[in-house]
Amino acid sequence: MAKSSPILLLVITHAIALVNAEIFTALTTLTKALQYEKSLAGNLREYVKLEQERLQKVLELADSYERHAETALVDAESYVANPVNAYLFVKTFTTDLPKTKELVSGKQNSEEFLQLLEDYQPYLPDEEDFEGVVAAILRLQDTYQLTSQQIADGTFTPTNRSPPMSALDCFNFGAFAHKYQDHYHALIWMDEAYQRLQQESNHTVSPSSVLDYLAFACYNHLTAFNWLTMHMANRIGIICSHG
Amino acid sequence: MAKSSPILLLVITHAIALVNAEIFTALTTLTKALQYEKSLAGNLREYVKLEQERLQKVLELADSYERHAETALVDAESYVANPVNAYLFVKTFTTDLPKTKELVSGKQNSEEFLQLLEDYQPYLPDEEDFEGVVAAILRLQDTYQLTSQQIADGTFTPTNRSPPMSALDCFNFGAFAHKYQDHYHALIWMDEAYQRLQQESNHTVSPSSVLDYLAFACYNHLTAFNWLTMHMANRIGIICSHG
Repeated sequence: MAKSSPILLLVITHAIALVNAEIFTALTTLTKALQYEKSLAGNLREYVKLEQERLQKVLELADSYERHAETALVDAESYVANPVNAYLFVKTFTTDLPKTKELVSGKQNSEEFLQLLEDYQPYLPDEEDFEGVVAAILRLQDTYQLTSQQIADGTFTPTNRSPPMSALDCFNFGAFAHKYQDHYHALIWMDEAYQRLQQESNHTVSPSSVLDYLAFACYNHLTAFNWLTMHMANRIGIICSHG
Repeated sequence: MAKSSPILLLVITHAIALVNAEIFTALTTLTKALQYEKSLAGNLREYVKLEQERLQKVLELADSYERHAETALVDAESYVANPVNAYLFVKTFTTDLPKTKELVSGKQNSEEFLQLLEDYQPYLPDEEDFEGVVAAILRLQDTYQLTSQQIADGTFTPTNRSPPMSALDCFNFGAFAHKYQDHYHALIWMDEAYQRLQQESNHTVSPSSVLDYLAFACYNHLTAFNWLTMHMANRIGIICSHG
């Protein structure tokens, strides 16, 4: 584990014994990540404030467009009889346009926030943590013989509950297992994803994706099971014929 | 005039006589442009509404970050004792991140509006109109011997006033004249821009840009004037010596 992966480490402590120093480091890093998460909440609110100011300017622009168009439409000919009016109208849609486009794109505010997020990234969980946590949970599932439903409901430790998992979360577990050709876990987690989809009014994952993976996992698992059965039957046959 | 340039056409009617049909077409096109400007005001307000909804989601995200971080920070070790908590935290900054970035970028709303603006473009004034109107105003200035200040104040037609021009507007006139090597107009309009800059609390154009052009226009205009004086003196000398 070249990079500190505190969450993975702390999850693993519940399956294997780790020395205190490692747990301490992991906890410190996790605490730091949570503090960065809290800072991000503040940064997001600042971003919203800047965006509200930008939208106020957009509304002022809309007002000025409307006011101008309505005044000019009363008598268009008389309006352009003063050529400065004509110039100011033309200017709005030529030299002023890049500024208007920039105002509407809102790029500056969003880019500043996204840059901040980029700066925080080393202190926040990453893809490696994601795979590590899922793998650790699958190992815990086998060790303590937990059903996918127990884990997904967050009720498998009665004293320390977690929020329930969505169909998409279960799908993520199934897809992870599928990636590493763990057909058994792929099957039970895609099945759990499918069960949860029935209860979701807004599907967090498309049913067809779940069914695709489910069919594939089912086929692979049964094939593996059949192969095992045939292999054992052969072995028994061989043993019997040699008996 | 391959492309209909209604504003230019209407400005020109005040300098030269045009047949009624041309004026009618120009007025129709101008009216259409003004109606598109009015529509744009409505579109901008719709865009702001969509953006407000987006910002509401960003605020909800900020709330969920803060709530989560504060709950977990109370006892980080006990928090990750349930590995599903750990999974959900990691997920926020890995698989959920592209969605968060998209939400903060606000690209969808702004791109939809910018596409709309693109669609309206053929009915709105363009760069050709801009240059045409400025050239027409400079011609009117010479014909009716108006000062730049009279035009910029919008008071040269007592019955039909226009809003006053900013220093940037005067700068645009000067820069246009400069582009076509019309040093005299460049000089008087950059001078007007400089006068107006003194009265602007928020400069609409940088003083150094105005002074740059002003110095250049001054030099060119004086050079042209000196050349003319010398040329005339030479001619007079030639005439005298031949007299």
